[in-house]
Amino acid sequence: MTRPSARAADQLRPISIQRGYTKHAEGSVLIAFGDTKVLCTASVENRVPGFLRGKGEGWITAEYGMLPRSTHDRMNREASSGKQGGRTLEIQRLIGRALRTCVDRRKLGERTITLDCDVLQADGGTRTAAITGAYVALCDAIDACLAKGLLAENPITGAVAAVSVGVYQGVEVLDLDYAEDSQCETDMNVVMDGNGGFIEVQGTAEGAPFSRAHLDGLLDLAGKGIGELLVLQRAARGG
Amino acid sequence: MTRPSARAADQLRPISIQRGYTKHAEGSVLIAFGDTKVLCTASVENRVPGFLRGKGEGWITAEYGMLPRSTHDRMNREASSGKQGGRTLEIQRLIGRALRTCVDRRKLGERTITLDCDVLQADGGTRTAAITGAYVALCDAIDACLAKGLLAENPITGAVAAVSVGVYQGVEVLDLDYAEDSQCETDMNVVMDGNGGFIEVQGTAEGAPFSRAHLDGLLDLAGKGIGELLVLQRAARGG
Amino acid sequence: MTRPSARAADQLRPISIQRGYTKHAEGSVLIAFGDTKVLCTASVENRVPGFLRGKGEGWITAEYGMLPRSTHDRMNREASSGKQGGRTLEIQRLIGRALRTCVDRRKLGERTITLDCDVLQADGGTRTAAITGAYVALCDAIDACLAKGLLAENPITGAVAAVSVGVYQGVEVLDLDYAEDSQCETDMNVVMDGNGGFIEVQGTAEGAPFSRAHLDGLLDLAGKGIGELLVLQRAARGG
Amino acid sequence: MTRPSARAADQLRPISIQRGYTKHAEGSVLIAFGDTKVLCTASVENRVPGFLRGKGEGWITAEYGMLPRSTHDRMNREASSGKQGGRTLEIQRLIGRALRTCVDRRKLGERTITLDCDVLQADGGTRTAAITGAYVALCDAIDACLAKGLLAENPITGAVAAVSVGVYQGVEVLDLDYAEDSQCETDMNVVMDGNGGFIEVQGTAEGAPFSRAHLDGLLDLAGKGIGELLVLQRAARGG
Amino acid sequence: MTRPSARAADQLRPISIQRGYTKHAEGSVLIAFGDTKVLCTASVENRVPGFLRGKGEGWITAEYGMLPRSTHDRMNREASSGKQGGRTLEIQRLIGRALRTCVDRRKLGERTITLDCDVLQADGGTRTAAITGAYVALCDAIDACLAKGLLAENPITGAVAAVSVGVYQGVEVLDLDYAEDSQCETDMNVVMDGNGGFIEVQGTAEGAPFSRAHLDGLLDLAGKGIGELLVLQRAARGG
Amino acid sequence: MTRPSARAADQLRPISIQRGYTKHAEGSVLIAFGDTKVLCTASVENRVPGFLRGKGEGWITAEYGMLPRSTHDRMNREASSGKQGGRTLEIQRLIGRALRTCVDRRKLGERTITLDCDVLQADGGTRTAAITGAYVALCDAIDACLAKGLLAENPITGAVAAVSVGVYQGVEVLDLDYAEDSQCETDMNVVMDGNGGFIEVQGTAEGAPFSRAHLDGLLDLAGKGIGELLVLQRAARGG
Repeated sequence: MTRPSARAADQLRPISIQRGYTKHAEGSVLIAFGDTKVLCTASVENRVPGFLRGKGEGWITAEYGMLPRSTHDRMNREASSGKQGGRTLEIQRLIGRALRTCVDRRKLGERTITLDCDVLQADGGTRTAAITGAYVALCDAIDACLAKGLLAENPITGAVAAVSVGVYQGVEVLDLDYAEDSQCETDMNVVMDGNGGFIEVQGTAEGAPFSRAHLDGLLDLAGKGIGELLVLQRAARGG
Repeated sequence: MTRPSARAADQLRPISIQRGYTKHAEGSVLIAFGDTKVLCTASVENRVPGFLRGKGEGWITAEYGMLPRSTHDRMNREASSGKQGGRTLEIQRLIGRALRTCVDRRKLGERTITLDCDVLQADGGTRTAAITGAYVALCDAIDACLAKGLLAENPITGAVAAVSVGVYQGVEVLDLDYAEDSQCETDMNVVMDGNGGFIEVQGTAEGAPFSRAHLDGLLDLAGKGIGELLVLQRAARGG
Repeated sequence: MTRPSARAADQLRPISIQRGYTKHAEGSVLIAFGDTKVLCTASVENRVPGFLRGKGEGWITAEYGMLPRSTHDRMNREASSGKQGGRTLEIQRLIGRALRTCVDRRKLGERTITLDCDVLQADGGTRTAAITGAYVALCDAIDACLAKGLLAENPITGAVAAVSVGVYQGVEVLDLDYAEDSQCETDMNVVMDGNGGFIEVQGTAEGAPFSRAHLDGLLDLAGKGIGELLVLQRAARGG
Repeated sequence: MTRPSARAADQLRPISIQRGYTKHAEGSVLIAFGDTKVLCTASVENRVPGFLRGKGEGWITAEYGMLPRSTHDRMNREASSGKQGGRTLEIQRLIGRALRTCVDRRKLGERTITLDCDVLQADGGTRTAAITGAYVALCDAIDACLAKGLLAENPITGAVAAVSVGVYQGVEVLDLDYAEDSQCETDMNVVMDGNGGFIEVQGTAEGAPFSRAHLDGLLDLAGKGIGELLVLQRAARGG
Repeated sequence: MTRPSARAADQLRPISIQRGYTKHAEGSVLIAFGDTKVLCTASVENRVPGFLRGKGEGWITAEYGMLPRSTHDRMNREASSGKQGGRTLEIQRLIGRALRTCVDRRKLGERTITLDCDVLQADGGTRTAAITGAYVALCDAIDACLAKGLLAENPITGAVAAVSVGVYQGVEVLDLDYAEDSQCETDMNVVMDGNGGFIEVQGTAEGAPFSRAHLDGLLDLAGKGIGELLVLQRAARGG
Repeated sequence: MTRPSARAADQLRPISIQRGYTKHAEGSVLIAFGDTKVLCTASVENRVPGFLRGKGEGWITAEYGMLPRSTHDRMNREASSGKQGGRTLEIQRLIGRALRTCVDRRKLGERTITLDCDVLQADGGTRTAAITGAYVALCDAIDACLAKGLLAENPITGAVAAVSVGVYQGVEVLDLDYAEDSQCETDMNVVMDGNGGFIEVQGTAEGAPFSRAHLDGLLDLAGKGIGELLVLQRAARGG
């Protein structure tokens, strides 16, 4: 089996993490997993949702969108069709849930940080790129708050990164691009922390059910890939 | 550790599967996982979505809803608030995806079967009860089509059942009820086929990340529980 | 003329009123008028709509829905199509209006009781079954509040029940089922209190206009049927 | 008892019916019941709703709206709030149903006539004024089609008019204005045809239930009022 | 070139301004520019939008609508289709912006005046008629507030009127009716104050781009027309 | 007067036009007017809106959006709030109208080209940057169609560019940035073609009305600025 990109089975696409991509957001990161490019901004606001008001805790939430022509064929603009689709809602719930695990929300105070993940160009793996980039944007926004003296203590409790793995032509492969994603038998998104703990595992049989052996192999591959992404996040953040 | 329900860690709640619960639908099943009660109907229609028109294939789709007072506190009615929430869309996408794996859609012809899963009473595990019940309703609807001579051949290719597992007070437990679900450290929904293959695995760390050891233990428990559910589905179907 | 159900012209369908059908709601009643089955729950909340805030009065409101396959052909789910249709809004306004007539809202205090009437199976007369069942659920919810000491005095001022009547093949008949409802010349829904007073009268000529003589006959029939329903409500409530 | 308007109990408000009020519509009538002013237009289009396509029949439908400041206090514009309220939908369903009873839809051919009833100024009884005016607009639109040779035969089968009646301070009164409508004990809208047949009867107890005696008296009053409205419709139509 | 209406190139249509057209609104004006008829009401409310709360300033806003059969062919009712179209939003933003320029909002106090401009009959130039009529309704509403002692000082700082101009068959013409508007090469809406100052200039090439010479000529024509409209506004206001 | 950016009154911001910014769209341009950055993609589809079907003509349309954190404070995501605001609709109507003037739609055949203009970073003048960039994306998409032999003849009939001008502290200035835009007395957006013809002129008095002299001066400035933008468009397109 040769991957369409000629990568080794356990090889990530070229990853780039560009901080400060736009100027207004407290954190703004353009992350690329190969041709997949996602702009992740972190916005800090002095408000919390109703259910947290007066509790002295903050909130982390996410929104996800794709530009209409980020994809091969033009998609309808969700703002124009009047609602966000199920896939969009599912992905933004996943991003928010994942990033909430790495923040001590009591140390954040009554603030909301919104992670906007907008796909400029899609080539598979947009949700895992979004999580990996949003973590860097979140850290930058926290640093900005610390620098301005808005926070007394850093509420970040650990790192978060994500990658997709799948079974393509019978082989377990890491970080699927669109050519693989659209043809694979099994697709799994994995989110882990900086110590190898699992935050989220979402595996789906696209055609036939998958075996426990494949599941084990995919989790190993994901661990390897996320280990590398964690290194790249630290490098982008300057060490 | 004692479970709130005093069940053994690997014990399902009492399961009941009542076929023919309402009279209009081709398949109509009230499934109970303990106090969780879901009405699953299967409706057959002679139409397919636009993207399948003229291809000689059928479609399986699902919709999910909760009655406003199926829950401890009354929820807003989604019809009244004007949109289905992200959780609803996520669950109905999961149900549809799971049930599509057990049907040969070419044998179905240009028909759509819609699985409506409406929660009459909620006590944890509504989505796994829905999948397990919808499979029975789907089989009954197919049987009705076969009996009327609408289908030449049975398009069902295998069984599907689902269960939740989780880590509660450090212990891996099967089929969480609400008291456990709202307190657990890790929550995983697993969908499997009749041969032990995985159709969907969705695990989420509710607080701290979870270890590979816990993940492995949870998958074992899920396999045991789904094995029992498959037996109960067959028994309910009379065979 | 023989009715499709072979009932006498002034005969109700078999009526059943099952209390405590679900466990979370303060009042929960499954009412059946023959094959028409409606789950009526009464939910008590410590809030009132904006226009009543600070006035020391409570509110009674209703919502109505049909499960997608409660009907012969599957209907669209209103939550999915994004709005409640005119028929739904009309029926839930009627139910709320009817039930407000039997409550002294000052004695209720600043509480809202929402009557959710969800049709599990439809065979004609869903709105009259809903009103008749919602009254029982409302009484149960009030009793629960009295038992917990939340209310000092019972705010229920009288009974409410409803039935449909119509002219079918030239004959005035009581409690139309779907076979009659879809073919009748005149259709009338009548809501009355426990003393024979009229709360609501809604008569519609389906084809040719109807005469005053028919109108008078239909009102007599409705009075007879509602008298019987009031007895059955009391019996179900244990007295 | 003196009515706020000093009218006799069985006296209509001054009625005016102004045809040709706007120039584009096939029928355009400004009807006034005292200070209640409703613009009723009838628009003819060569299309029918999906459920009638190819059946050789036409359709009559209605839409109802109130200008935001037709009322004492400004109401929200329904176009701006994004949906028509329950009251609006209920009224436009009533208007459409009433007007469909006076048309032989087979003679109309595959055409839709839409009756738009827009309240310019509200002072009680807008729905009954709308029905009474819409009938005249409908006849004018039919005449226009006959004059152009679009229709071979007149599909109008009879007249339709409507009035409200109610119990105000214990007395049965005809054609309630807002001062009465907002204070009355019972409110009833009655639609009748040109031969004294009932098309629709909708009576509501606003406070205490009403007696059969009051119901009978109100129906008598409505018959008298509608008789006068039918004369005024004919006069306005020149005949 | 002869205009379809046989008017001179610099001639307005017959203008009429009828005050007190409906009785509830503080200001209510039916303005006609030929066959274009717009009902403009001004409603005063003791509230301001959130962004002005507590600032001691008032707000002027506008809403615009067309009755479904104000036009040659029936348009969909925006309340029914569930949203206001882009053209509607654009026009009501223009009306609001224009009228805000002639009010000292500090003198208005924390009040909102809403200008509802509803087109009863359309024949081109509805937005300019709306602005010209809304100014008169606004002045009447302010006078009503002054008369009741609600305002200490008149917040109106000057007059506002508007007209359309365009290039029709190569000739610059004033106040286009529909026959011209639908055929013209260039269409411009101009809003001016009582001293010849420009409040808004919106010119659009419908086909070929237009020259600076035409632009200058159109502005001259607009100035002449608006001068006449200002006189008619004053005359209608009795002064 | 010194401009906040220290530019001369008739000086544009640094302009950059980056073609091929994303890979899927037939035309994809990142245009920057200083810190304002807009991604303009042109998507070609083999369909036309209903009103053009079967007429042998194409269509050009535009959609506009701002990323939630393109602005100083985070804006709500329009996809999430469920509708596009009035400003968005107004701008995308303007972009579409402007670009339609430079295409012979008969030569385009039954194709739609959608110009998606998404603001990545906003600093004033997003709509004029969008028009100027969308023209380049449109030309690239047309070239792609010509290269593939889909079009026999180039349907582009001329160039289109746009710039804002305004009166800031009494001085007429070119190409306002946000610091000027939010403070200026008059704001005008001008769209012109390659021959100095006007396509659109939209001038608004933000505070006091503006004089004819200022209007004339602003049009001169706009002409100068657009002349320079036309040169830069040609340069970006390679001459």
